Amino acid sequence: MSPFTGSASRTQEWRHLRLSVDAGVATVTLDRPGRLNALTFGAYADLRDLVPELARDGSVRALVLGGEGRGFCSGGDVDDIIGATLGMDTGRLLEFNRMTGQVVRALRECPFPVVAAVHGVAAGAGAVLALAADFRIADPTARFVFLFTKVGLSGGDMGAAYLLPRVVGLGHATRLLMLGEPVAAPEAERIGLVSRLVEEGGADTAARTLARHLATGPALAHAQTKALLTAELDMPLAASLELDAATQALLMTGADYAEFHAAFRAKRPPEWQGR
Amino acid sequence: MSPFTGSASRTQEWRHLRLSVDAGVATVTLDRPGRLNALTFGAYADLRDLVPELARDGSVRALVLGGEGRGFCSGGDVDDIIGATLGMDTGRLLEFNRMTGQVVRALRECPFPVVAAVHGVAAGAGAVLALAADFRIADPTARFVFLFTKVGLSGGDMGAAYLLPRVVGLGHATRLLMLGEPVAAPEAERIGLVSRLVEEGGADTAARTLARHLATGPALAHAQTKALLTAELDMPLAASLELDAATQALLMTGADYAEFHAAFRAKRPPEWQGR
Amino acid sequence: MSPFTGSASRTQEWRHLRLSVDAGVATVTLDRPGRLNALTFGAYADLRDLVPELARDGSVRALVLGGEGRGFCSGGDVDDIIGATLGMDTGRLLEFNRMTGQVVRALRECPFPVVAAVHGVAAGAGAVLALAADFRIADPTARFVFLFTKVGLSGGDMGAAYLLPRVVGLGHATRLLMLGEPVAAPEAERIGLVSRLVEEGGADTAARTLARHLATGPALAHAQTKALLTAELDMPLAASLELDAATQALLMTGADYAEFHAAFRAKRPPEWQGR
Repeated sequence: MSPFTGSASRTQEWRHLRLSVDAGVATVTLDRPGRLNALTFGAYADLRDLVPELARDGSVRALVLGGEGRGFCSGGDVDDIIGATLGMDTGRLLEFNRMTGQVVRALRECPFPVVAAVHGVAAGAGAVLALAADFRIADPTARFVFLFTKVGLSGGDMGAAYLLPRVVGLGHATRLLMLGEPVAAPEAERIGLVSRLVEEGGADTAARTLARHLATGPALAHAQTKALLTAELDMPLAASLELDAATQALLMTGADYAEFHAAFRAKRPPEWQGR
Repeated sequence: MSPFTGSASRTQEWRHLRLSVDAGVATVTLDRPGRLNALTFGAYADLRDLVPELARDGSVRALVLGGEGRGFCSGGDVDDIIGATLGMDTGRLLEFNRMTGQVVRALRECPFPVVAAVHGVAAGAGAVLALAADFRIADPTARFVFLFTKVGLSGGDMGAAYLLPRVVGLGHATRLLMLGEPVAAPEAERIGLVSRLVEEGGADTAARTLARHLATGPALAHAQTKALLTAELDMPLAASLELDAATQALLMTGADYAEFHAAFRAKRPPEWQGR
Repeated sequence: MSPFTGSASRTQEWRHLRLSVDAGVATVTLDRPGRLNALTFGAYADLRDLVPELARDGSVRALVLGGEGRGFCSGGDVDDIIGATLGMDTGRLLEFNRMTGQVVRALRECPFPVVAAVHGVAAGAGAVLALAADFRIADPTARFVFLFTKVGLSGGDMGAAYLLPRVVGLGHATRLLMLGEPVAAPEAERIGLVSRLVEEGGADTAARTLARHLATGPALAHAQTKALLTAELDMPLAASLELDAATQALLMTGADYAEFHAAFRAKRPPEWQGR
């Protein structure tokens, strides 16, 4: 157990999503298949709380995010969310939208890579959850729809106007966010929105395999790579080089770097500790 | 009429370009076909003044930018501009180049999407005008040429060194801006410089159709999507999420969001007000 | 000779790489073919010192960076570098990693374009050297491998986590840096990592031809284009437009801009001075 454990207790039961943890890989499954995994207030809140809790835990080294049933996630539920927000006052509306942003921030800033396994529809907030992941493993049924303007809202929901131009470029991002048009898997792969396209029905397995590979590898190196990619989007070149130098100097004192060298000299595969 | 109307009168006649406004769509046509719509000081000044005037007006919800004749725009006129600038003093040169930059800033910051309809050549400042638009609808004759270095100037004219890497990535942008090589329509589509490639001769019609679709839709949502895309290129993630939350909370109090929900429940298409 | 020459003497002999200068084109060749041009402390230090020295010189207008033998560069030498760093204390580790970052900074900030000629493997620091160039001319044998995590280090080495997302987008960059997978030439071209793909064995010649073209052209315009591309990655739109205006006003007082106009009127090709 980490020495940096405080009084906060671990959540006993996540009521709005399914969680399993196995050998350093956490699997979070949106599990409301009858509604295409439409998000509720509870699901957003659980995502916001779960990811930092896993980060504090220290044993999780990769996270898979997937959806049960016919698709990944159809976004915010029309009744449970759109209907409900229509009755909210200013403060509550801000609170709701800050919460959804906190989910994205948690996914971008947690100290382990996040692998989204996408099949079927990833719409609205579902598309942004996938976008906030480090890897998007998709099968040919995957369809990304940033449909916010279709409900009268800004396409820049939950950081999409920040993230999408940095993934696919400003031209494609403008088209996708302003028009809310669906992007099928082949186009998503072509423009760089999909990390890996796998055979139909294979997204969950491929995502799990990748997560396991990441978790059993030099996990601290992976975590720092993610941290630098996230941070340096917002940093100038000179400062980024300084951050890189400090990070690399640090990792050069770590167990895995020494292990690589020992294994290389002994002509055996390295046994990574993730430290 | 907007209550935020002051004393400034509307321009009676735009002498250096053609303007028409119909049902919320403004169409600006570069109309000097004998010179491939080469830009003059007057044309730059009109673009600089027109876009903010349309923004103040409040009734314009989308803008189409096109060129009359054989091409979109061949850039600054060799005689009227290059020749004239050779005789200018320091202050005047700065004033000229600031003016051209103000055109780009106006296009990026106006509260409505801009659709460039590109056929034939889009060269020099013409290529940057297209680049500054939100959508580039091109036909197979379209050719983008960032030819600034070919006249002895920096490829970073009018924000091109800022915008192009954010649209096509730093590698392609370096090649296009430093070498001034033409980019034909298929390559432009492949690298993300073109939003939509249409059949020959179809760019104007397709751009008009898209602009009408944007203008009759949830126009405030479109405008805010554009504003966030523009702003968040220059913002860090955490601040972007805060801006998104405030924007979305605001739009959730708007007419179009309520209309979407009412229409959804009544199983009818929404009647957007753009508010 | 430049009036801005001080006391510092020019290096008589570069012991860790090969340098030739011809008609404004400097060619730097990594020349340790028996080790696939693996980098040593001396090679990093020479790159760090050579590029600013060439910049001070003032006569160099383009730089070609290539590798002797079967590949471009296999990165830091496993024995000479990895082995040696394992025995270093904190201060020395930071010093080493700062030095490698200074090489990248020198390549991005020198006042002439850098053309990497890549054949065979460009791995680790070798991949980042190519990434830091303005142009990557590759032949079909080229293979980019950002293999840092495979040795237990962060993928964000020498600015890679800053540069790569800006060249190929965040999605591809995450995949390449976190997994350390090789990118073959066709994929590298498809995602924008390669500027130009040439026939097998042709990278060096094509790079030299391009460098000569750049050096005999309007070299000051090229240098400023590079400077703006580098600077404006870190600048907001409004400030970029102001920098563009000042730069363009300056170049409009230069010899090459006047020469373009004179040549155009006389219907002859311009004779560029690079000033």
